[in-house]
Amino acid sequence: MKKTKVGLIRVLTTDDKDILYAHEKKLMKYFSNLQITTRCIPNQPEGIYDENTEKMAIPKIVELAKQFEKEYADIVFISCANDPALRNTRQILSIPVIGAGSCCATFALGISNKIGILMITQNASQTMVKILGDNLISCVRPTGVNKTLDLLTEEGKRSSLEAVERLIEKGCDTIALACTGMSTIGFADMIKKTHKVNVIDPVLAAGLPMSYRFF
Amino acid sequence: MKKTKVGLIRVLTTDDKDILYAHEKKLMKYFSNLQITTRCIPNQPEGIYDENTEKMAIPKIVELAKQFEKEYADIVFISCANDPALRNTRQILSIPVIGAGSCCATFALGISNKIGILMITQNASQTMVKILGDNLISCVRPTGVNKTLDLLTEEGKRSSLEAVERLIEKGCDTIALACTGMSTIGFADMIKKTHKVNVIDPVLAAGLPMSYRFF
Repeated sequence: MKKTKVGLIRVLTTDDKDILYAHEKKLMKYFSNLQITTRCIPNQPEGIYDENTEKMAIPKIVELAKQFEKEYADIVFISCANDPALRNTRQILSIPVIGAGSCCATFALGISNKIGILMITQNASQTMVKILGDNLISCVRPTGVNKTLDLLTEEGKRSSLEAVERLIEKGCDTIALACTGMSTIGFADMIKKTHKVNVIDPVLAAGLPMSYRFF
Repeated sequence: MKKTKVGLIRVLTTDDKDILYAHEKKLMKYFSNLQITTRCIPNQPEGIYDENTEKMAIPKIVELAKQFEKEYADIVFISCANDPALRNTRQILSIPVIGAGSCCATFALGISNKIGILMITQNASQTMVKILGDNLISCVRPTGVNKTLDLLTEEGKRSSLEAVERLIEKGCDTIALACTGMSTIGFADMIKKTHKVNVIDPVLAAGLPMSYRFF
């Protein structure tokens, strides 16, 4: 089987191999025809969490994407729910560029018209909000959860599941996870253990078009 | 491997087995974890091709979808690019309902911002147009092609490939096929033989979320 070579861009700087390769490992588990190389952007140990950090990240993502195209990749995957630099890189590169946020939102939209966004930052990914349009019922952030690691505490888990309940009560049958950090910690599985609701993991959602090479 | 049971609804009436099972066969080829049962709506030998025929089809689709849920299916798939009765059935059924048009458009949107719709009816699928928003560059219908069978003639093929060229010239890098009849005849492959462009087959696009059971 010919494998599709993916250049995976992490938008936080880390040399903790468990964190760095978390998305690569997740994709490899489900999509056996992908061959993935992960690299992270430099000097952003806290990743992207607001407008300013996104602005800082964009030229670094463009740089990495260009490198990937030159050296290796059939596809570039920007593994962030905000889809930073997606349009910029698509203009420059001649290989396909995929973003986690747009894949998550589009996949949700393919299966439902009653979608909720679960986020951990102050604002939901604007790419996702725009794609979902009037199919987006509500965006919710768990109380007391400000970064992905907060989800791992007992308090954070309780609070996050309560946030999911709020989305379900509002009529959502599908929850789009608006942070790839939630993918890192396997949050979709946590939700599915306790709630009967569709949950879209943004990294796995991006795996679908990458794995299924129509392009 | 546990298989996902799909109730596949064809929106044209036929007892020609090659035509009736074309979408089922296509999905089975690519998605080995799907177990598909195909049924067609009654008394519409020409399928859906305008507002009136769509209106006629909606209660029939709802009826078939309800039958599928009752007897058999984990998911219902309405195999038409117009997504007729998608919202109605989602309101009534408690299993997921997938439409070919929304899956085709959402998949295109997941991989590109420069999308063209190739259609054979007078108007493009409004579901698809709405989902694509300002990522839709142009909708084109091949000259002289009014039904899928026209695509099979030499004249129809030439005209359709010329329509694809027009979309590419306008800046599209991704072509969404807005008729599942194009899927029946394998039109995506015809295009990909001669043009370097992403082509989204609406039936296969629907196979992705069905096969990949997040829900």
